[in-house]
Amino acid sequence: MADHKILLDESEVPEYWYNIIPDMPNKPGPPLHPGTGQLATPEDFAAIFPMNIIEQEMTTEHEVKIPDPVRELYQMYRPTPVYRALRLEKALKTPARIYYKYEGASPAGSHKLNSAIAQVYYNKEAGTKRMTTETGAGQWGSALSMACKFFNIPCTVYMVKVSFEQKPYRRVVMETFGSTVYASPSEHTQAGRSFRDKYPGTSGSLGMAISEAVEDAATSGGEAKYSLGSVLNHVCLHQTVIGLEAKKQLEKIGEYPDVVVGCVGGGSNFAGLSFPFLRDKIYGKEVRALACEPSSCPTLTRGRFAYDFGDTSGMTPLMLMYTLGHGFVPPGIHAGGLRYHGGAPVLCKLVNDGLMEASAYDQLDVFDSAVLFAQSEGIIPAPESSHAIHGGILEAKKATEEGKERVILIGLSGHGFLDLAAYDAYHQGKLVNFPLPQDEINKALLDLPKVNV
Amino acid sequence: MADHKILLDESEVPEYWYNIIPDMPNKPGPPLHPGTGQLATPEDFAAIFPMNIIEQEMTTEHEVKIPDPVRELYQMYRPTPVYRALRLEKALKTPARIYYKYEGASPAGSHKLNSAIAQVYYNKEAGTKRMTTETGAGQWGSALSMACKFFNIPCTVYMVKVSFEQKPYRRVVMETFGSTVYASPSEHTQAGRSFRDKYPGTSGSLGMAISEAVEDAATSGGEAKYSLGSVLNHVCLHQTVIGLEAKKQLEKIGEYPDVVVGCVGGGSNFAGLSFPFLRDKIYGKEVRALACEPSSCPTLTRGRFAYDFGDTSGMTPLMLMYTLGHGFVPPGIHAGGLRYHGGAPVLCKLVNDGLMEASAYDQLDVFDSAVLFAQSEGIIPAPESSHAIHGGILEAKKATEEGKERVILIGLSGHGFLDLAAYDAYHQGKLVNFPLPQDEINKALLDLPKVNV
Repeated sequence: MADHKILLDESEVPEYWYNIIPDMPNKPGPPLHPGTGQLATPEDFAAIFPMNIIEQEMTTEHEVKIPDPVRELYQMYRPTPVYRALRLEKALKTPARIYYKYEGASPAGSHKLNSAIAQVYYNKEAGTKRMTTETGAGQWGSALSMACKFFNIPCTVYMVKVSFEQKPYRRVVMETFGSTVYASPSEHTQAGRSFRDKYPGTSGSLGMAISEAVEDAATSGGEAKYSLGSVLNHVCLHQTVIGLEAKKQLEKIGEYPDVVVGCVGGGSNFAGLSFPFLRDKIYGKEVRALACEPSSCPTLTRGRFAYDFGDTSGMTPLMLMYTLGHGFVPPGIHAGGLRYHGGAPVLCKLVNDGLMEASAYDQLDVFDSAVLFAQSEGIIPAPESSHAIHGGILEAKKATEEGKERVILIGLSGHGFLDLAAYDAYHQGKLVNFPLPQDEINKALLDLPKVNV
Repeated sequence: MADHKILLDESEVPEYWYNIIPDMPNKPGPPLHPGTGQLATPEDFAAIFPMNIIEQEMTTEHEVKIPDPVRELYQMYRPTPVYRALRLEKALKTPARIYYKYEGASPAGSHKLNSAIAQVYYNKEAGTKRMTTETGAGQWGSALSMACKFFNIPCTVYMVKVSFEQKPYRRVVMETFGSTVYASPSEHTQAGRSFRDKYPGTSGSLGMAISEAVEDAATSGGEAKYSLGSVLNHVCLHQTVIGLEAKKQLEKIGEYPDVVVGCVGGGSNFAGLSFPFLRDKIYGKEVRALACEPSSCPTLTRGRFAYDFGDTSGMTPLMLMYTLGHGFVPPGIHAGGLRYHGGAPVLCKLVNDGLMEASAYDQLDVFDSAVLFAQSEGIIPAPESSHAIHGGILEAKKATEEGKERVILIGLSGHGFLDLAAYDAYHQGKLVNFPLPQDEINKALLDLPKVNV
């Protein structure tokens, strides 16, 4: 019988993050100033990010050394295990060998802690006295709160109001780590007050919460800095510990994946898992990377590759990415972490260049796969991660049809213990598929900023 | 810097469970028939348990081989890690070295899966077509549901009504693994209907739910068998994988605990952790075992060592244990898994013989320690496990006062992701200490069954 899990010793936590940009045949487009449309300069970011993070965002080094205090905190929970999904393979009667890298083993319950620890460390080094951020479903807010407590920096979280009300447990996690959590839009910022005036009774959105957190930092007189949990280069960089470990784990048992599968919202989780393998692909190795997204928010499969704002109100620099339009509001699927109109510019460029594939799945199919996975492997996956599981299961079924062996590596980015309302709806037959919001996408795409690239 | 965690390879999952009874200087009292007060025979248990489990309950072997299919399922998540609580030690400024064995790493979120897998395996072997059980807070019901799904046996869970309503997520976990969950008292059993008649609007109790699950099995014509998640010898036996692994893990780094600390409700978790160490103590080694319980349900510290029923209505065999009286209803503390009037006879006998110590703690002190632990180690502990953390922290503080090194091993039996309402109450200042329910205990002790031992 094969082993169920492949573990590494904590001395094997990577010493460097891997930066894919120098290896990319075509580089991601540079960020542009939201007002002038000119190339954004480091100073444009300085009001909200410390300079050491801005430098890392723009680095062209192949490898970036993980600072000792960060690596030390990684060692509390890393390397995370790679599991062989033996019981799932059996349930599927597939000749494929399915592995999953489990980031839910982090005490925050997801991969988000990998970047949270790094970002708070750099802020501590830079003298930041308080951190601000937004959170939707709450995974990022939980991770940043934990990291802030580890470094003793107070943290203010603007949590999308509908999540604040529907997921009180997520708020409790953040409060347990000492954070102050506001339902967004709040009374605490100019942006929040104006959203409340403009949209009375609104349930909030990630775009509004970003605006509040950015304003809070920008108007703090330098005391507070802002932190983002995905999309940006430095966040993708931090997450590469996932793929670096997974590669070593598979090597240990003489395996190399035919396909690496992950879910994509902002993109940092799948960037982290796939980039170390895509490096091999760039240099000639045969390996596929499959990005899985919801059909209700099909950024990579139906978005336009164009410059757009990262937030709803147009405050962030313009980024060259796949976008459904910054004004697009996705239907209320349970995978809240995938409801983002854009994606990481570096990941989008790889898709644009054909180095990464993308597929979009309906919510009900995703939950069918999630429940099959839970009943086979015991772990109840987060709705976001379940998209990767569904993509992996489809790959396994294809292997069965073709009667071929295939090695599939799935990124299981988090557990679903705080998302059980979605499973309840599924069991009660209340979970629905949404029709493709093509009209809304078309409409939002009309509002793309005009940029001369 | 010392390592943060001590891992074992899955080939090191124990091959045998350890049975402490043959090593005990004085044996636990035998169970008695609830009606006649005579020694209970295997046949007395046959209506609700399969014969292979009854035999295991009575075994006098020192070691019991773990069946291959059980060990194979253990290997999905075992060996669980032992962590060094480096950041907690620093926060406490203690010379003590604190380790914790983390059973929350199980996909069910607690140690309960160790016995659930074994019990369902034996039932499958014996031809059982359906399992019944009760659950309070839901940890046991979740674990048994997962194990039943692994072996494809349908499972019926009677969940205490107040938990069914207050912890819907726990129900969703059980349903995700295919179980049928009833709020107890239910309409599905004679016992349930009579409880509903007798106590209109009752929120239920573990005692009532046990009565329902036992009746369901006993009246099924042999199709269904009943399963209990703690207290009995075979459950404590299954849990010894915890202590066997922990001992090997500490050996690996040249450590041996001065004190082993765990929480006790029914007692199986702490039995599992401590018995392999208590074997050494019986044969002359210096090691302490400290059982931690809530001051609101102080079974080991204020109970009477006497024969009593395991359930409220007096249907189970009589067991010689510490008891607060089977009619005692503990105050509504958040550590639902510790609200039990009795305890495992084998563990109680060790306390009675002075081989194990016991302490009782107030709810607020326990949560102070739980939050300090979470903020230091990242893991939010279950309220039950937090009693062990509090006991361990007190031991570390004693070491600080005495200026002595001390090696402390804490049993962290589960995570608290499904218990966050308790933390919410704590943060809001709504968590209270209950006064010692001495009058209620005195009253309940008047109703102990009269037995001539």
